[in-house]
Order: sequence, then structure tokens, then C-alpha cells
Amino acid sequence: MTAGSSVKYSVSVIGASGYSGAELTRLLLKHPTVMLDELYAFSQAGKKVSELYPSLSTDKVYQQYSGQTASDIYFLALPHGEALALVPDLRKAGKTVIDLSGDFRLKSTAEHELFYKQNKASDAVMTYGMPELFRKEIEQAHAISNPGCFATSIILGLAPLFLGGGAAGAVNAVNCTSVSGISGAGRSSKTELSFSEMSENVRAYKVGVHQHTPEIMQSLGSSATDPAFDFTFTPMIGSLVRGIYSVLNVRLDRPADGEKIQALYREFYRNAPFVRVREAMTEVRHVAHTNYCDIHLAHASASGSMVIVTAIDNLLKGAAGQAVQNMNIMLGLDETAGLL
Amino acid sequence: MTAGSSVKYSVSVIGASGYSGAELTRLLLKHPTVMLDELYAFSQAGKKVSELYPSLSTDKVYQQYSGQTASDIYFLALPHGEALALVPDLRKAGKTVIDLSGDFRLKSTAEHELFYKQNKASDAVMTYGMPELFRKEIEQAHAISNPGCFATSIILGLAPLFLGGGAAGAVNAVNCTSVSGISGAGRSSKTELSFSEMSENVRAYKVGVHQHTPEIMQSLGSSATDPAFDFTFTPMIGSLVRGIYSVLNVRLDRPADGEKIQALYREFYRNAPFVRVREAMTEVRHVAHTNYCDIHLAHASASGSMVIVTAIDNLLKGAAGQAVQNMNIMLGLDETAGLL
Amino acid sequence: MTAGSSVKYSVSVIGASGYSGAELTRLLLKHPTVMLDELYAFSQAGKKVSELYPSLSTDKVYQQYSGQTASDIYFLALPHGEALALVPDLRKAGKTVIDLSGDFRLKSTAEHELFYKQNKASDAVMTYGMPELFRKEIEQAHAISNPGCFATSIILGLAPLFLGGGAAGAVNAVNCTSVSGISGAGRSSKTELSFSEMSENVRAYKVGVHQHTPEIMQSLGSSATDPAFDFTFTPMIGSLVRGIYSVLNVRLDRPADGEKIQALYREFYRNAPFVRVREAMTEVRHVAHTNYCDIHLAHASASGSMVIVTAIDNLLKGAAGQAVQNMNIMLGLDETAGLL
Amino acid sequence: MTAGSSVKYSVSVIGASGYSGAELTRLLLKHPTVMLDELYAFSQAGKKVSELYPSLSTDKVYQQYSGQTASDIYFLALPHGEALALVPDLRKAGKTVIDLSGDFRLKSTAEHELFYKQNKASDAVMTYGMPELFRKEIEQAHAISNPGCFATSIILGLAPLFLGGGAAGAVNAVNCTSVSGISGAGRSSKTELSFSEMSENVRAYKVGVHQHTPEIMQSLGSSATDPAFDFTFTPMIGSLVRGIYSVLNVRLDRPADGEKIQALYREFYRNAPFVRVREAMTEVRHVAHTNYCDIHLAHASASGSMVIVTAIDNLLKGAAGQAVQNMNIMLGLDETAGLL
Repeated sequence: MTAGSSVKYSVSVIGASGYSGAELTRLLLKHPTVMLDELYAFSQAGKKVSELYPSLSTDKVYQQYSGQTASDIYFLALPHGEALALVPDLRKAGKTVIDLSGDFRLKSTAEHELFYKQNKASDAVMTYGMPELFRKEIEQAHAISNPGCFATSIILGLAPLFLGGGAAGAVNAVNCTSVSGISGAGRSSKTELSFSEMSENVRAYKVGVHQHTPEIMQSLGSSATDPAFDFTFTPMIGSLVRGIYSVLNVRLDRPADGEKIQALYREFYRNAPFVRVREAMTEVRHVAHTNYCDIHLAHASASGSMVIVTAIDNLLKGAAGQAVQNMNIMLGLDETAGLL
Repeated sequence: MTAGSSVKYSVSVIGASGYSGAELTRLLLKHPTVMLDELYAFSQAGKKVSELYPSLSTDKVYQQYSGQTASDIYFLALPHGEALALVPDLRKAGKTVIDLSGDFRLKSTAEHELFYKQNKASDAVMTYGMPELFRKEIEQAHAISNPGCFATSIILGLAPLFLGGGAAGAVNAVNCTSVSGISGAGRSSKTELSFSEMSENVRAYKVGVHQHTPEIMQSLGSSATDPAFDFTFTPMIGSLVRGIYSVLNVRLDRPADGEKIQALYREFYRNAPFVRVREAMTEVRHVAHTNYCDIHLAHASASGSMVIVTAIDNLLKGAAGQAVQNMNIMLGLDETAGLL
Repeated sequence: MTAGSSVKYSVSVIGASGYSGAELTRLLLKHPTVMLDELYAFSQAGKKVSELYPSLSTDKVYQQYSGQTASDIYFLALPHGEALALVPDLRKAGKTVIDLSGDFRLKSTAEHELFYKQNKASDAVMTYGMPELFRKEIEQAHAISNPGCFATSIILGLAPLFLGGGAAGAVNAVNCTSVSGISGAGRSSKTELSFSEMSENVRAYKVGVHQHTPEIMQSLGSSATDPAFDFTFTPMIGSLVRGIYSVLNVRLDRPADGEKIQALYREFYRNAPFVRVREAMTEVRHVAHTNYCDIHLAHASASGSMVIVTAIDNLLKGAAGQAVQNMNIMLGLDETAGLL
Repeated sequence: MTAGSSVKYSVSVIGASGYSGAELTRLLLKHPTVMLDELYAFSQAGKKVSELYPSLSTDKVYQQYSGQTASDIYFLALPHGEALALVPDLRKAGKTVIDLSGDFRLKSTAEHELFYKQNKASDAVMTYGMPELFRKEIEQAHAISNPGCFATSIILGLAPLFLGGGAAGAVNAVNCTSVSGISGAGRSSKTELSFSEMSENVRAYKVGVHQHTPEIMQSLGSSATDPAFDFTFTPMIGSLVRGIYSVLNVRLDRPADGEKIQALYREFYRNAPFVRVREAMTEVRHVAHTNYCDIHLAHASASGSMVIVTAIDNLLKGAAGQAVQNMNIMLGLDETAGLL
């Protein structure tokens, strides 16, 4: 697909009433090149968008989705499992599709089944939409599976070590500990996510079994799937709405040379407008309400131990922002259009 | 009822699994004179208390309530309307009862019906358990209706003006604006009370129609029910779990003399161990996790305008703490037993 | 000053390193018609903007201000008192000036002295930059005094009653109780504003003496300065960073007719793109990170009592957003340019 | 020192005006066996305790410390470095001393110098007051160095593996990632700890160089000081006041057998009233305002990877609570006196 800056595309969102859908709505409403068409939302159909999200400036009303294909581009922001049935018809109709769920991320159906507790067809895989790793494939793609929020914060923090030519040495072990904002759990009515339960709190969950794990492994290449490879991921939620802060403990097979590793990271991301390799410590507030992923090498020791810290906004670089970034690349637009 | 310090009473809580019930549990477990017997909770029956509230040090298991009367004293911390059916049998069995709901607070069945949308018998009224106003009645009572949380913070802030002999002048108008912690809404699974919706937020609700309004009027005496009397109450919830902060705008029929009014308040509460008339500004953190009500006269002008600010912990002085304070008085114990 | 959409103006900010200055920076960087020139900041001069505010996408470095006048437009976001000395020279050099401090807001030097504890020249007054009330004056102005944050939330909530032709009746009394986000206190190192002191807290301050009081009176016209008029303002801070939520208790001289009053408000703001008169309750989250002021009539009674609730983002409609809105109007641009 | 339950000791606190000092004050005021004597605080001397901490029920006034030794027991809650000069005289006067700083924790003066940037005498070491590991030594001691907050949460989570007889296998690597409440930074006026900076935020600091590191190593025994041993500690602060949540990634030299490891932990802590080995996930709210340390084995894999999660209240089990627990043991009292 090619495009000039004056060309307009029509875009619709299926599953628009959740938090990622609302961020997509906000971004698409002010995007310079696309025109927001329909917002589909099952349980909220018939309600005004501004009733649910008064901060959004629009008169649109949520619609019921029943197979419409009038727009050029469809974003899907549905609960896991629900996109599997909708995407094939959209693809058959020649539509550009960007799916934010986990339904089309994993090449291995066995891993999908294990982590999502759900069957899927072996060809239900789409181009993995992480521009910093797969920009060329995304440029050619018509269907994108948008990465998970934790996965984005972890893959971007590790990719130079795994995919950057081995300049830093081989990685023997990785332990990831991530704190996520509670919006990552979606627009929820669970008691355990109520303000009274989550204010002044931190809680881990799904330790070692989180569904973003295989997606991380897959993106980092075959060395990561080696049974000898020690990878553990501990997701947590804390007292914040937006943001993911990941602490990545890495063990190299040789002394960690901080300067060389920083240079490797800068080189790896030199053309990535949304990744910032920072010399100062990063924190969630630095990236909240932005599409940036900040990366900081916090520790590098002669024993081979390293600590890399990354920060993203889970709803932007971890969801809606990255989805629009993918759309921009697919349409041949400036990668940052509507995102700065 | 009379008691010496070595006498032990057995106490049970019906509706023990909500936030007020949990605070009652905590207070009663460490109370020096009573022994906590059973904890009844309908939907949670069979679960360990420490499973729901791991901060509570007890091996007790929530039980199903089906008319048991083995304890000396029963606290009821049920949703509004549910105590109406249980209290009569407990009273017939000679039990001491302290009810934390609104079911037995209002003398006027018309007002009860209007504000609670619920009928009740005209004799369904129990002694209003605000020790600072009705200590003598509470000493003689066997059944107490414990005040509402907002009502406590407002009545204590206004009582000296209405019930203190008119030393400050007649009150022409009162506007109350209160911020409550979200625990006041109970252990909830409503989306609108989720962390993602309530962090960094403030929201008013039930403006002018909150059910604590008639309880406030009733406690302040007949002058308050005059149709010419201008009383408005705006409850809000903010980004905090515990606490109520009430700003009381009062208009007197004469210039407000700050020193005289402070003296009036100090005199009125000179025997009240849990009310502190403070010269410095008060704030929620000063009273959180305590049974205190702090009162500060923040403004007094020649035009007759006054601003009184009060702060309580909604779960303690606004619920469980005041309930135990009432129990102490009924049992002839030190009013502060188990509360400091 | 007249302008077409392709004309570019250069803009600088003096006092750019505080929270309002940072929001101005963010808005001006992405404004379609102006070009951000210099960012002046006294104590931070020499530091990169992105070091202090990594969420801002710019390579600019804070400069020391020493009388430069190379830009077309100057925003001043300085502590109260500091703009008094700088504005005259900027005006003499023919620059367009928008000052966010209180230095040039009050016509009465006596009131300025009383509330700001500071002298100023009697001609140190500039057009009061509240577009919804003074759009015509702003269109003609070259120097604007941008309203205070509390003042904005209160004036917009009351203006239709005072300046809307008296359709609702005369106002006898107003009591305002406002909760502000802590960013209103600026980028601060005070212990009392630390996270450990302000999490889960609410605290009133400057009750009856806040410096925004005379600015509110002045904007609402002479009736408000009548000694018989009962006006009280209680500012509070709560556990949120951004936002102001104002509860306005109004007493009319006749029964309050809710429908008529809503119609009055809608008519008064029918050309105001950033004021939304809402039928549903408003809350801070509805306006956070936007330039909107939401207004909701929450209560209207036969006794003449009314409760009006307003919500703004203190850093946007209460500071930087309104300043850019004023600039747009002065330049003849679309009032919403760069603000949606 | 031996004691019966009716014996009373007098206790003073030096450095009583910080957050740990305030918690000590609260605990000692209601302790059944000791009498709180003086509260010393340098910069706050002369102020009422209730002025700084209105939630504390006391009429005491902070005093200036100038060598007084009238009490039986002295707690020191001073900034690091300040206890070094005071403790020797207190010890010479035969006083029981419990120091909450890091001044007397490390046996290695080289490590002390490296991590605290400060010299100290080689005999400036006192019994390390972690009752679960060194109860016998504490019973005999007259001077205790109370553990650091992070150190407590990490040592208790690892001790059974290192000191429990090797039942689970040898530990090859440990990576610790801990989120602390901001009160851990003390009563502070730093901009970076203000509410506006820390709400909705997470930030790592002192990665790999935190001063609690050598204390952890020392407590876990010599195997931990082996240069081949891979230990990394990443401290973070998040948007909460109280609590530490530690995620401990452990790599064993053999498959991790979850059941065996749980049994090992239960056995190791069978006599520890404040350590709870929990089958359910733990979270900060479970231990806030208590002296408990909760431990949960969250993951154990055939590859030898384990994830252990611990939670404490940093001001109680991580400071003042553990200090009182140590005092109880030294005095021969019930270890839990005044702490439940």
C-alpha cells in the first residue's frame, strides 16, 4: 500500500469501548491522514462515546458490529479469542487489519493452546507489529498482530542483546519483573481491582505462566527457546493506572561492558523514533501519555550481571499507540504521524 | 448494664465480611474486655477470615447466620434494609444490639421512606449512638443505631451551634461539602469504583438527596427542619480509601466571633475523648486509622459566615470505631477501651 | 493583530520550567501556527528541557532571560510578583504578552495589596483573559492577564447567574468548595506536599483569604462586591496531581427552576467551544488532559438553593490551555487551534 | 536481662520525629510493659509531638538530646552516621540500645566504607536484630542493630534456602527486585518525592549499589560472598506510602520442587510468630499496618528457577515493629507484646 500525505483512509475500531479502544479513538480522531468511521462495541452499542469517555471530543455513537466492511482499515481491540472469528472475513474483503489481541501473535499453536487455553488454526498468525524489529515486514503487510503490553516493554529492552549480533556476548539467563498500571486489566468491575483494594498496593500474578511469555521468546529468536535458557517473568500490578516498568535482570556469558552495551543499544535503535536509550534513570512518568519506550542500562558488572530498565505507557506504546504506529508504516506515512 | 473490667462479654458480628465488618473484627479481636465469638457473612460463609483479610490475625471462619443468639452482644454491619428483619428477634432474646445500617436511625417513617426508598414499622427506631450528644441515653440503652459516616462528620461539626445554647447566634443556613474515601461505598465490584476510574479523580453524587440528610436534621433538633432553613449536602468521593473531610459553610444571624465560637466548641466537647477541637488546620491523615473526629474553625467573618472543617476515619469514628465506643458506654467500660 | 492560517509567529516562554511552563511547552511545540522559540528558566538555565521533563519531545535548553525581545509573543509563567518588572519592557518593545501570574489581574490596587501582600502600580492591569466572558476585549488586546485556576473553575460556574441577565433571579449567597490537584502548588519541595504526606489525604488551606477571591468578585460584577453579599471560598488539595473540582452552593432570592437554569447556562455558553454544560454528573477524569470546563447543575430546590459542580484541568483550562486559547483569539486563529 | 510481665521499663527514642520514630512512638505508647519516657528530635525540639503527628495521642514535647541516660532502653532512629557517636556512651552507661540505622550492621568495615561512604571503627558492630535468624543471640544481647527494611524483606524470603540445611539444593543466583513505599525515604522535602512527581509512578534507584546489599550477603552466610555468586538487587519506589514488595528470582542447581520447598519454609519459620508462609499470592495490603512478613512461593520450575514473593510494612517489620520485637525478646517478654 502506498500513500501521499493528502490521501485519506477510513478507519473503524471493533471493540472500541475498552481502555485501548478509547485510546485508539482519541488518536484516530486527531490523526492527520485517516478519518475515523465507525466505533463498534458490543455491550455498549447505542451509547454515545462521550457518555462513556467524556474526555473524548466526538458525537459518535457505539454501533453493533455485524460484518460491516465499509472502511479501509479495521482495528480490533477485543478480549482474547474474539478476533479469531472476525479477522478472516475482513481479510477476505481486502481490508487492512490491525488486531490488538493475542489471537494471531504466536506461530506455535501448541504454545497458544498452553498459554491462552484456547485452540486456533495453524495459519492464524499475522505479522508481529513491533516496528523496531520488523519494520520491513510491516511495510509489506496487510494484517498485523499488535504486540502485548508487557511483551513490548520486555522485547524492546532485550532485543539488542539477542538480535544485535552478539556484540555483548551470549545471554545465559533473563529474569523479568514488571509493574503494570491497572488499566492493563481493562475496564473492569472486579472487586480485586477496585480502588479500595488497589490503592497503596502491589500484587504479583500469573508468575511464570503469563501469556506474553511465548511472544517474548518467539520475538527474541530460537536461542531463547533452548530448554537450558533460564527465563522467568513476574508481572505485577501497582497503584497506578497507566504505564509498565520492567526490570530485566540479564546474565551474560562474559563480563558486562557498560559502554559497549550502551553503544549497541543506541546503534540498534538509531532509526527508531519511539525508543529512547537514556543515560539517566527512567521512570513511568517520563513516558506516560506518550508512545515512547525508554530504556536505561542501570547496572553492568564484571560478573556478567546486567540490569536493564524500560518504561512505556501500556495503553500507547503497549497498545493503541503502537497500533497507530503500525498503521502509519503500512500506509507509507511518517511513522510518527498523529503520535507526537 | 453494669460491668467491671474483668467481666468478659461474648460478641458476634453479623455482616462481618464488608469493610466495616472487617474493622469491627480487628477492634473486637484486641478489645480487652470482650471476646469475639462468631463472624457471620452470607456470601462468604465457609471462607476463612484471613483469606479475605490477611491483615487480620485470626483463625476464624465466616459462618452462615440463621438466628443464633448465643452471644451477649450483636453488631450488625449489613446493607441497608437487611437488619430490619433480624433485630426484633435479637431484641426479644434479650441481646444487646448495635446496628451500623440506616434501618433504625430515623424517627420519621416518611423521611425513611423518602430517603431509603423502603418501608419500615414506625417503632423501628433505636437510640442514636452518637456518644458526644446522647451519652446518657446510650448508657441506658440495649439497642443502638450507629450513626452514618457522613452524618457523624457533619453533626459533630455543627452540634455546638445548634445544641450549645445559642451562644454563637442562630444558624440561618448550612451548606456541607464532604469528600469521602471510597471504602465508604463498601467492598465493591462496580466499574465506576475501580482503581482505573477513581485514581486521580473527584466525583460528587446524590447531591441534595443523600440518605444521611434526615439523620443530620433529626440530630440537630427542630430548628433544622424549618422549611426556611437552608441546608444542602454535597457528598463526593475522591482518590483515597479511608476518611471523610467535611467543609461546613454556616451562616449566622450575626457576626461570627471566632474566639467565642472556639470556646463554645471546647466547652461542648470537654468530656468527649474522641473529639479534638484543633487550632491548626485538620486533614484526613491526622485521623486515619484512629477514632478521632478533628474539628477546626477555619473562617469566621463579620458578615456571619463561618467555615468549619471536620475530619474522621469513615470506617472508625464513622462506623466500627464509634460502634465499639457505643458498646463500651453501654457496658459501663472506659469509653476508650480498645480504641486508642 | 490579524492572521491567516499560514502565518507563523515566534513564541517564547519566560518561567518555562514549572508545571504550567511545561504544559505551555508541550502545547506550543505541537501548535500548528506558532513556532516555539526560547524557553527561559532562571534556576534551571543551561539544563536540557528533556532532562527535567522527559515526556517533552524537544532538544531545547533552558535559557537565562535577560531582556530578550526577539520573539513575537511572550508567555510569562513566573511566581507571583516577578512579572511586574518584566512586562513593561516587553510591552514597550511591542510584544504580545500573556501573563499567567496574578500580577496584572486586579483593577483594585487595594485588593491586590490585601491578597498578594505586595504593592503594584495602579495601571498594572491587563485584559482579563477569560474568553467565555471577554472574547471581544481579548480580540483587541495585546496584553492578557490569564485567569487563576480556582478562579476559572468558579467564575465559569457562576457567570450565567451573574452576567446572564438575571433570568434565574438574584444571587444572595455563594459558598465555593474546591478540591485541587497538587500540581497547583507548583514544582515543589515542601514536606507537606510530599507523596508520603499527601497520599490518601485531603487538606483545606487559606480558607476565606485565597488570592483568587477578588478576581472572582471582579469578574462577576459589582453586585458581588456588595458587603451584604455572602461569598466564601474554601480551597483544598487532595490526592490527585491534576484537576480542580468546584462545588458551588448558590442561594437565589426565589425558587430555583432547574430547567430554566440549564437553558440559561446552555445559552450563555452556546459559542464557547471549551465549556460543556452537561446533564450527567461531571468528574475530574472527564476533563483531565483537556482544555474543557464541564459544568453540571446538580441540585435546584424550591427554597432557592442550588448546587453547581464544575471540573477543569488546572494546568490546561486553569493555566496553559487557557493561555493558548487566549493567544489563538488574539491572533485571529481558530480558538481551538492546538487544543483538541 | 530477665523480666516478668508486671515489671516496667522506661524507654526513650532518639531521632523520634521521622516516620520510623513516629511509628516507634505509637507502638511504645500502647506497649503493655514499657513506659515511654523521652522523645528526642534535633530540628523539631520544643515542638509538641501531636503538632507533627496529630494521629498520635500524647502530650509529649520533642526534647533536645544532650547525653541523657535516665531511661532503661534507648531506641535510635537517626540518619545513617549519627548513631556512631551516641551509642558508645549509652553502652558505657549500661543502657539497652536498639539502633535502627545502618551504622552497626556490617562486620566488614571495608564493605561499610564502600556502601555507606563513611569510616567506622572495626568494633562498631552489634547483634543483628533479625529474630527469625538470631533469636538466641538477641535474647543475650544488650545492643541490637535493627535490620534495614529492604534487607528484612529479602533475607526472610531467602533464609530457608541458605540457612535451612540445603534441602532445596544450592543457590546459584539471586536477583531481587523490590518496590518500596515512599515513606522509606523518610520525612522528606525533595522535589522528586513530591506527590506531583510520584503519583502514578515507578522509579528504580541505586541499582546494584544499595547499602542493604552487604547486610543481606552477611546474613545469608559465606556462600553468598563467593565472587561466582550472582546477586543483583534493584530497589524501586512506587505510588504507595508504606510497604515493601520483593520479588526474588532464585536459580537452584537442581529442579525446584515446590512442595519440598514450601515444607522447608514452613519448618524454618515454625516458631516465628510474624512470618507467614502463605499458599495464596501475597500483596502489600495484606501486611500494611502489621508486623508480618508474608512469603509466597510463586513459581518453581524443573529448570531450577524459582520466584519467591515477600511483603512487609517497611515502617513496622522493616523498622519500628521489628525494633519492638527485638526489645520484647531482649526483655524476656512475649515476642508479640504490643505488636498484634
